[in-house]
Amino acid sequence: MSMTDTRRLEALPRDESLRLLRSVSVGRLVFTHLALPAIRPVNHVVDGDQVVIRAYVGTTINIAVGDNTGMVVAYEADLIDPDTHLGWTVIIVGRASRLTDGLEADRFRRLLQPWVAGGPDDVIAIRADMVDGFRLVA
Amino acid sequence: MSMTDTRRLEALPRDESLRLLRSVSVGRLVFTHLALPAIRPVNHVVDGDQVVIRAYVGTTINIAVGDNTGMVVAYEADLIDPDTHLGWTVIIVGRASRLTDGLEADRFRRLLQPWVAGGPDDVIAIRADMVDGFRLVA
Repeated sequence: MSMTDTRRLEALPRDESLRLLRSVSVGRLVFTHLALPAIRPVNHVVDGDQVVIRAYVGTTINIAVGDNTGMVVAYEADLIDPDTHLGWTVIIVGRASRLTDGLEADRFRRLLQPWVAGGPDDVIAIRADMVDGFRLVA
Repeated sequence: MSMTDTRRLEALPRDESLRLLRSVSVGRLVFTHLALPAIRPVNHVVDGDQVVIRAYVGTTINIAVGDNTGMVVAYEADLIDPDTHLGWTVIIVGRASRLTDGLEADRFRRLLQPWVAGGPDDVIAIRADMVDGFRLVA
């Protein structure tokens, strides 16, 4: 198949987009750090209308969004076949905030294992204020 | 294996990071659109110290960076095993600019096939001013 002849981009409804986001465990947080665009892959859980991640104290993500100023961030996940380029992408945009309720944070810590060992961390929730989902279909 | 006991993050040198970026065809452009963080998966080629993508006229990427104001953007690619979470990520940050030399643009158009059919497009180069690479190793 030629790379260009039949593929098209299809917008997905919000519910379907959040369902796809829930179906994977890895995504990318997009934020601002030292006035520059920054992006880091992380693992997540989706809880209702929010995406929840963990960030060790001292890491770039934690420094940038852990101070709870409510920075507007984006969060993206995708599953795209490297050969056919068919698949999907989901992007949410919304405020990020550190969970200050210790019991709630601990509930997410049990659901969400960090990739690397480390010290104390924060649990950060990103509100899905805007949701964009696209499917690349043949 | 427990998810936390042995994995660690290892910083990669610039050359190795660019080599990894060159080894895949899909990444994510991080930019600002309407004063909000934006991210879109695209396919790319790496040419020396720049990452080159195509963007159809009228798309969000094209509207945001195609006007050649030299917006500072990030570009990220990764390959992370969804089960073991081992793999790598490479992030570059630098100015994006539309190639205005038609011959140079056409050379990249031959190297870089768009995923979906569409109308006229621009060829956009992102300078790898800053390169961060990390490997998740067991």
